[in-house]
Amino acid sequence: MRELTPDRVRAAFAALGTGDRQKMLEYWDEDLRFEIPGNHAHAGWHEGLDGFLAFLKTVGELSGGTYLAENITVLVNAEDGYSVDVNKNRALRAGAPEDSTSPYHLLDVTALHVLRWRDGRIVEGRGVILGDGPATSALWWSPLDPDGTRNAA
Amino acid sequence: MRELTPDRVRAAFAALGTGDRQKMLEYWDEDLRFEIPGNHAHAGWHEGLDGFLAFLKTVGELSGGTYLAENITVLVNAEDGYSVDVNKNRALRAGAPEDSTSPYHLLDVTALHVLRWRDGRIVEGRGVILGDGPATSALWWSPLDPDGTRNAA
Repeated sequence: MRELTPDRVRAAFAALGTGDRQKMLEYWDEDLRFEIPGNHAHAGWHEGLDGFLAFLKTVGELSGGTYLAENITVLVNAEDGYSVDVNKNRALRAGAPEDSTSPYHLLDVTALHVLRWRDGRIVEGRGVILGDGPATSALWWSPLDPDGTRNAA
Repeated sequence: MRELTPDRVRAAFAALGTGDRQKMLEYWDEDLRFEIPGNHAHAGWHEGLDGFLAFLKTVGELSGGTYLAENITVLVNAEDGYSVDVNKNRALRAGAPEDSTSPYHLLDVTALHVLRWRDGRIVEGRGVILGDGPATSALWWSPLDPDGTRNAA
């Protein structure tokens, strides 16, 4: 079992981006659970690596591939089997004007993941949003445009 | 400068409980800022050690001294100067029935602090609540009782 280090946490997220399932399974347990915070349509526990990947696909669609995470720091407690990675996240809803600053269009939050590791793999993840981000991001996840019309997504 | 370790993070919170300002200043910078998450009446940045202590006094009053934090884990990145402590928090609003489970009465959340350290002291803290805790805790912080009457606090 490899040691839990900040580099291993970064490698786990990098593996998600490869699309290579065997590579993902080096870090993410097949039976993991992942919680998206809040109470919007996509919030709550997503079950299994497949459930988590389906959620990530949804994020890609809603954001038109614009979701960006800029890492601030990664912390680990190897003995307890926990890691936390803090990130600045930014995403524009698909179809929104590029210069929109409405929270219905623009996600602009600092957030983190609390990951629990067992036998070298992530078995549980919980996303958490800092400050008033849970309120503003609930608008981003909603099907509303700033004028109250429902969009297709 | 002492090394940033999980034990030092625990000692910082223990110092807050002593009421000894000199002891607190071993860990908490005089000019620190501390963010309470959400958008309720006590949310946002509290400025300076005095502002932070005034907020803690408010918590003590609103909870009638029942606020309890059970630590789950502490993580550090000494190089970057960050710590995170994850806790189960529980508190009953002052004057509420002891067996009430209403979110207007009972705070029952998992939350964490992101602390930024400089020269051995905490210069910035941000509270963050996991899951749907920001929504339920907003009710706890409100001046409402479950029947919509405003309480004195």
